[in-house]
Amino acid sequence: MRKYNLYITAKKGIFDPAGATAQSALDNLGFAGVNSVKIGKLIELETADEVNTDMVETMCKKLLANPIIEDFRIEEVQ
Amino acid sequence: MRKYNLYITAKKGIFDPAGATAQSALDNLGFAGVNSVKIGKLIELETADEVNTDMVETMCKKLLANPIIEDFRIEEVQ
Repeated sequence: MRKYNLYITAKKGIFDPAGATAQSALDNLGFAGVNSVKIGKLIELETADEVNTDMVETMCKKLLANPIIEDFRIEEVQ
Repeated sequence: MRKYNLYITAKKGIFDPAGATAQSALDNLGFAGVNSVKIGKLIELETADEVNTDMVETMCKKLLANPIIEDFRIEEVQ
């Protein structure tokens, strides 16, 4: 079995409404000093041994991420 | 400025409908060998220097995560 963590984040310049909402909510709750909140996705995959990083990259491009507005990073977990 | 990455995942045993949907969609697209897909959140915080890990933990408990159904891990990014 292999495990992969995928980190999916909005590309620079793409507005992140959930992050902006969380940031103003933190401010309203009295947490000072938070300059930026960006909310992305952490996807944990468990796969068969024959699934390699290239195949996971294809999964990201075809389904798990939106390459037009999102960046993704793949990490194999040992 | 400090940067923190927060990794928020569903607790063990909590059903993750988005992950289950992604898993069956991968299967429908012909990607074999994916045994599990879990979708959590990656939150990137940028804060003032005086915001420490304890304060970020409080932010998670009060707003950013739902401690009843989610686990979270805080990592300070150097």
